[in-house]
Amino acid sequence: MRTMWDEEFEVVIIGSGFAGLAAAIEARKYCDKVVVFEKMPVPGGNSSICGGIFSAAGTPLQAENGIEDSPALMLADMLASGQRFNYPELARMVAERSTETLLWTIEELDVKYQPSLSWVGGHSVPRSYNTWNASGSGIVKPMLAKCRELNIPVRLKSCLANFVDDGNNAIEGVEIREEYIFPKSESGTPKRIRATRAVVLASGGFSQDKEFRAIQNPRLTEDIESTNHQGATAESLISAIRAGATPVQLSNIQLGPWASRDEEGFGVGSLFSMLAGFPYGIIIDVSTGNRFVNEQSDRKLLVDSMLNLGTESIAIVDQKGVAYATTLDQCLKRGVVRKFDSIEELAASNHVPLMPLVNTIKSYNSSIEKGEDRFGKWIHKGLEPIQYPPYYSIRLLPKIHHCMGGIRINTLAQVIGIDTRRPIGRFYAAGEITGGIHGASRLGGNAVPECILFGRIAGANAAREPLRSGHPLSQE
Amino acid sequence: MRTMWDEEFEVVIIGSGFAGLAAAIEARKYCDKVVVFEKMPVPGGNSSICGGIFSAAGTPLQAENGIEDSPALMLADMLASGQRFNYPELARMVAERSTETLLWTIEELDVKYQPSLSWVGGHSVPRSYNTWNASGSGIVKPMLAKCRELNIPVRLKSCLANFVDDGNNAIEGVEIREEYIFPKSESGTPKRIRATRAVVLASGGFSQDKEFRAIQNPRLTEDIESTNHQGATAESLISAIRAGATPVQLSNIQLGPWASRDEEGFGVGSLFSMLAGFPYGIIIDVSTGNRFVNEQSDRKLLVDSMLNLGTESIAIVDQKGVAYATTLDQCLKRGVVRKFDSIEELAASNHVPLMPLVNTIKSYNSSIEKGEDRFGKWIHKGLEPIQYPPYYSIRLLPKIHHCMGGIRINTLAQVIGIDTRRPIGRFYAAGEITGGIHGASRLGGNAVPECILFGRIAGANAAREPLRSGHPLSQE
Repeated sequence: MRTMWDEEFEVVIIGSGFAGLAAAIEARKYCDKVVVFEKMPVPGGNSSICGGIFSAAGTPLQAENGIEDSPALMLADMLASGQRFNYPELARMVAERSTETLLWTIEELDVKYQPSLSWVGGHSVPRSYNTWNASGSGIVKPMLAKCRELNIPVRLKSCLANFVDDGNNAIEGVEIREEYIFPKSESGTPKRIRATRAVVLASGGFSQDKEFRAIQNPRLTEDIESTNHQGATAESLISAIRAGATPVQLSNIQLGPWASRDEEGFGVGSLFSMLAGFPYGIIIDVSTGNRFVNEQSDRKLLVDSMLNLGTESIAIVDQKGVAYATTLDQCLKRGVVRKFDSIEELAASNHVPLMPLVNTIKSYNSSIEKGEDRFGKWIHKGLEPIQYPPYYSIRLLPKIHHCMGGIRINTLAQVIGIDTRRPIGRFYAAGEITGGIHGASRLGGNAVPECILFGRIAGANAAREPLRSGHPLSQE
Repeated sequence: MRTMWDEEFEVVIIGSGFAGLAAAIEARKYCDKVVVFEKMPVPGGNSSICGGIFSAAGTPLQAENGIEDSPALMLADMLASGQRFNYPELARMVAERSTETLLWTIEELDVKYQPSLSWVGGHSVPRSYNTWNASGSGIVKPMLAKCRELNIPVRLKSCLANFVDDGNNAIEGVEIREEYIFPKSESGTPKRIRATRAVVLASGGFSQDKEFRAIQNPRLTEDIESTNHQGATAESLISAIRAGATPVQLSNIQLGPWASRDEEGFGVGSLFSMLAGFPYGIIIDVSTGNRFVNEQSDRKLLVDSMLNLGTESIAIVDQKGVAYATTLDQCLKRGVVRKFDSIEELAASNHVPLMPLVNTIKSYNSSIEKGEDRFGKWIHKGLEPIQYPPYYSIRLLPKIHHCMGGIRINTLAQVIGIDTRRPIGRFYAAGEITGGIHGASRLGGNAVPECILFGRIAGANAAREPLRSGHPLSQE
């Protein structure tokens, strides 16, 4: 008995975020019939709602600003933050090809970036570009436009139900539920889609799958918020594992330390903390008025410190530091960030004991003068004392942000089988669905280069697989 | 077409360590035909070569010695060491039923323990029994004797090749390779064994699977030694995942900080460090002569500190402290522990700078007098200054010891399916093959109660599954 197929493409891509769309655009260079399936009614997934930060080593903006950087330094930062759980060969690719990938978004997609670099926690130097609109949509929209230009259909409300193998350790296609209504697993109409060259899985992480994330890390209880869109669930990861993919490091799930307690999801406050509050301000324990951590630490270290406190924390920045915030107006408008003429007002409004806070700021300012901070924050020449009103504060709440774990790929973006420990035929993956690139903790702005780099690799390699000898559709 | 079966039992158990043998003994209470398959030519796996330490809260020896303890305190220790990656409901069962499980080994199996308790790192109080022979074989041998008494065959050189499901989300049997020669995957003769009630997987961890452990944690390179027997490989874990089991926390792999650089594997030195060197002595960096960690920390903290040093470390104990070592004679005989009449000789022989070492010991001794240690070691009344010759040293080498990750079970020891997120029918698991009980780091002596407790639960529940309506063997 032969499998019934309803439709046939050369390359079938699951997911329409950075990785999936990059795969589609690249695949189209080498073959004609490429399709993208997206389970949600809108394209883009988390990529559309993220902060649009792109970290890269050796960029034009770094050269303009006299910032010395190298892929080796970026890799060292990734391994340090990742506690060396990273696959070194994949992490190295991200570092070495980050600038090439950035330039591709500029040259091929005409993505617009802001004119200044950001310095994001855990990076040794400023190396992060920001999209013009401070959102990943600044990259996703040009990608979607490119797909239209290339006649690549992006089919929405089309949920992966299963991979179909050819009985010979290779993937031959997928079962899709069309007109699927998230999150109803039984909604929509099943259709079998054949891939005559290969399938690319780029379906993202599972930060919104409250049951599955707690299975992997029981500490991540239901009540913990997430920055992710509702569709970030685990069923495609599970389908991949059932199809023989190797699960790796699924319990490495990152919380973002910079999110706001006063809005849902990633919102506008996350970027405020990430770009201004942490690098140019301080984080304090509201119950004591004291600092407790190097604000420029990687995300895991920050979150662990905040959770160990057991109390609430806020970030504070002054008029000088706030200049680095790209989302200030929206933050103020939504009440996520509040503005005060004096530290006294800021303290009163945030219920922080005044004198300890004043002393904390004094001590921090004198660290900057001395050039040495007791929490190890690097005192660079761009760092100024907190002394110019108005002052700004944001109430912080760690939210689940990124799954470092996923399925194992190699440098060609091939999915590695758990039993054979070799590539599964005609099966590629890229982006947050893959695991082990960032290890224990991903650095800010490193997902975009990773997703786009491995998306492009997956798309190109998928499209260059030999064409399966065609048997007609719907044959039995 | 019906599956061909070569043989039929009521309960089929994979693995002959603590968990598998406990399952067999318990299953036999409720049904007649129980079998244990073991892939190696000898039974017992790691259970036979471990240190035979059994931690339990609220035991007779604690009562005799006036040590106050409770399951709640043991659970708190487990969650702290586990960084709350533990499944709390399973960890609680280990703590609450640890003493009941200890007493079962004494009353049902006639296991003999030493008359004094040990205080193992990360435990808040002394709560660890030691088998009479300072080895897990002190429990495995009585278990094997009980199996013989109960007519439970333990078939050696019989390797699990696959689980066979009944097409209805339940396991119906296994494919075994008989006369299997480890590690040749194609050796032996395939046989299909039906389980008319259930299958229990108790096949242990994968610390000796150099490829698979590096897939889960790339930092664990090939050259890192392991305390485990050669058969501790991942193929049965992979078979379980391919059969639909949920993988959890596979990258949580523990190194033992107490192993000796001067012998292979677990050896005799591990217990020396664990029972004497760490609780009653000090650990120093040989390059500086300084202490760098609370010697009574949990294993993960100790190993991380040792690896961060980047140099070698040794443990030192004096005549008083060495009294707690159960394996001293063997250690001295094998050159794993060396004995010196003076600190001068110890320093010279270990290439430690003398004066810093003398100062370190002075400072440690004065901590004991003051009742407060700068590294946070708890200064209890049993702790004495290091001052009575002869002195003993052991050269330490962290070795891979235990897989905290594995497949997910519930409180009934049922294996939970990854796609349904509910129990897979007639499929149980216990012991190191299961994941999430110990979280990020298992405490010393906690594997034995866990393996035996969940082994017994798995065996009892497997044996009480309704009998499958029999179809004869070899039917087509």
